[in-house]
Amino acid sequence: MHTETLPVVYAVIMAGGAGTRFWPASREKHPKQFLALGAHDDESLLEATINRIAPLVPHERIFVATGRHLEAKAKALLPHIPAENILAEPLARNTAPCIGWATAVIQRRCSNAIVMVLPSDHVVTDEDEFRRVLTKATEAAARGFITTIGIVPTRPETGYGYIERGAVIAEGIRRVIKFTEKPSLAVAQHYLSAGSHLWNAGMFVFRADVMRHEITTHMPELASGLAVLDSSAKEGHERSVLDQVFRRLPSVSIDHGLMEHAAEIAVVPGDFGWSDVGSWQSAWELASKDEDGNALPPHAMAFDARGNLVRDLRTSTKGKTIALIGVNDLIIVETDDAILVLPRERAQDAKLAVQALKAGGRTDLI
Amino acid sequence: MHTETLPVVYAVIMAGGAGTRFWPASREKHPKQFLALGAHDDESLLEATINRIAPLVPHERIFVATGRHLEAKAKALLPHIPAENILAEPLARNTAPCIGWATAVIQRRCSNAIVMVLPSDHVVTDEDEFRRVLTKATEAAARGFITTIGIVPTRPETGYGYIERGAVIAEGIRRVIKFTEKPSLAVAQHYLSAGSHLWNAGMFVFRADVMRHEITTHMPELASGLAVLDSSAKEGHERSVLDQVFRRLPSVSIDHGLMEHAAEIAVVPGDFGWSDVGSWQSAWELASKDEDGNALPPHAMAFDARGNLVRDLRTSTKGKTIALIGVNDLIIVETDDAILVLPRERAQDAKLAVQALKAGGRTDLI
Repeated sequence: MHTETLPVVYAVIMAGGAGTRFWPASREKHPKQFLALGAHDDESLLEATINRIAPLVPHERIFVATGRHLEAKAKALLPHIPAENILAEPLARNTAPCIGWATAVIQRRCSNAIVMVLPSDHVVTDEDEFRRVLTKATEAAARGFITTIGIVPTRPETGYGYIERGAVIAEGIRRVIKFTEKPSLAVAQHYLSAGSHLWNAGMFVFRADVMRHEITTHMPELASGLAVLDSSAKEGHERSVLDQVFRRLPSVSIDHGLMEHAAEIAVVPGDFGWSDVGSWQSAWELASKDEDGNALPPHAMAFDARGNLVRDLRTSTKGKTIALIGVNDLIIVETDDAILVLPRERAQDAKLAVQALKAGGRTDLI
Repeated sequence: MHTETLPVVYAVIMAGGAGTRFWPASREKHPKQFLALGAHDDESLLEATINRIAPLVPHERIFVATGRHLEAKAKALLPHIPAENILAEPLARNTAPCIGWATAVIQRRCSNAIVMVLPSDHVVTDEDEFRRVLTKATEAAARGFITTIGIVPTRPETGYGYIERGAVIAEGIRRVIKFTEKPSLAVAQHYLSAGSHLWNAGMFVFRADVMRHEITTHMPELASGLAVLDSSAKEGHERSVLDQVFRRLPSVSIDHGLMEHAAEIAVVPGDFGWSDVGSWQSAWELASKDEDGNALPPHAMAFDARGNLVRDLRTSTKGKTIALIGVNDLIIVETDDAILVLPRERAQDAKLAVQALKAGGRTDLI
């Protein structure tokens, strides 16, 4: 139990995500956050997320919220994170219950905690700037604002939610006027040219007590569930009631359940080379490439081939020679049990394979 | 030793070929004739060649001429062919020494043999017609003609030699006016429209004694080499002199060395769905395909994908799921140690990978 009166910063890495867009690399039991889709071939996105904030938050104050089916995998991957900091949700209930529970657990340990909630499956290329923005957000959170990081848009993206920024609270910190849903292209283009909106990247920083108060105000069902967990924890048997409580919690995102209603919401704009790595196309964009735009494993050969992404993710240690001749802009991913071949411009369609495998009952492959 | 006075038909299957156009399926020690590129997934071209003539020639009269490095593989693949019928050349000396030696060996066994020489790496779709043509050629051979099968051309192919047909000898049998080299496109188009020329598919039928006589006339070096082999064989130690004799033999094709000079040459035109399966493009053409023109292994899935050839040639028994999404006209070949991806229209370029591997000293992969 920390007893400082100064706020103490904790982090919650949300690592419960599933997803089908990185099949065959990603599986239900090996989702995107466990893949090395960033700059380093040997570092998963989840590890990179932790390493990125390590200068700000020591390992013993980093929590990883994930699903029970991923608990063992997360613990094995992150031996430096205390095992009790891996929070295994018995079932997925979207982000509000996840953040609520993690906040409750942290609050029990430290009553004046500030919590930063970060997705585990994004990429950041300018880490110094990222930490500067997080520190700024922590400052806003200390003032009592539930603070979100708003990514400065670089294109009229229609796949993200947006945050409309309002009056200046302090240098680099603004009020939030509104969270908006995914816009049409015309609206997104307007947002971009007006400079009025930021991308909602699902990153939040807040005081634990403020979050609990807002939950009590706007999400009473969640609040009472958390109260049950708190009192069970006090009696030393939280785990025994977790299933039952989670089953009754509403499945709601923190955005819908709380951020759109809370009064004191701030945003810190960030421009640090962010990507949510939404598809193999993004993975190609982020990969280091040769002069022909090919991102290839060591044992690949390319002849008159450009713009290809090849990933050999077999667990066998023996590199397989891959020869590309006269093919452009393809994604080729090989695992022990599957190969995917599709054009980069159709990267989103990797999910078609997953859907067909699911329909065919091939649970071994999804 | 056969003692019939009626001619007895023997076959020599030429299975010494190397080749790089089917990499990564074909290797120096596993060349094209050992691949299942025809209609049946479990039958190599060499096996198919033998099965195709089995109604005409019993196994004990079928010889397989191959290289010493392929001898064990051929014997293992063809347990029903007597081991002594596998003729392993100590080094490759083109077709004239190969045919000369096989003819000598057969002649020792049967003085009135008729020999049909057939490549081991072609495909024939109309096998009944093929055997009818071979029987006709045997009839011409019995009359004393060195007889070749001329394939009725279906396109102005510039990659083959041609045979100009002459006067009728008997129904379905003509004299050969001339063997010609690979023509220009204009010349090939003229041949096609004139109907005057046939493709030289490297299939010959002849009386053993006639062939030996022609060799003596036109290829005296080969004739004297064969004489050494014959006398060594009589003394029971042919194998001990084989290396020495072969090393001194001229490396010449039967076409150049003999057919272009011999007087009594006949041709039997054949139209039996012949292909020399020259590349992965030919393999795709010959493969059975789904309604979208895809030739896929059992564990493949195609979404909005057309005209692809996928071959999973790994020795592992576990089928790998291959998902093709939105790709057309590709060739994808996987073996245990390599993958090739290239467009069908560039199928000939598979050799680029082999050349690069050779330059890089990767003898394990070629």
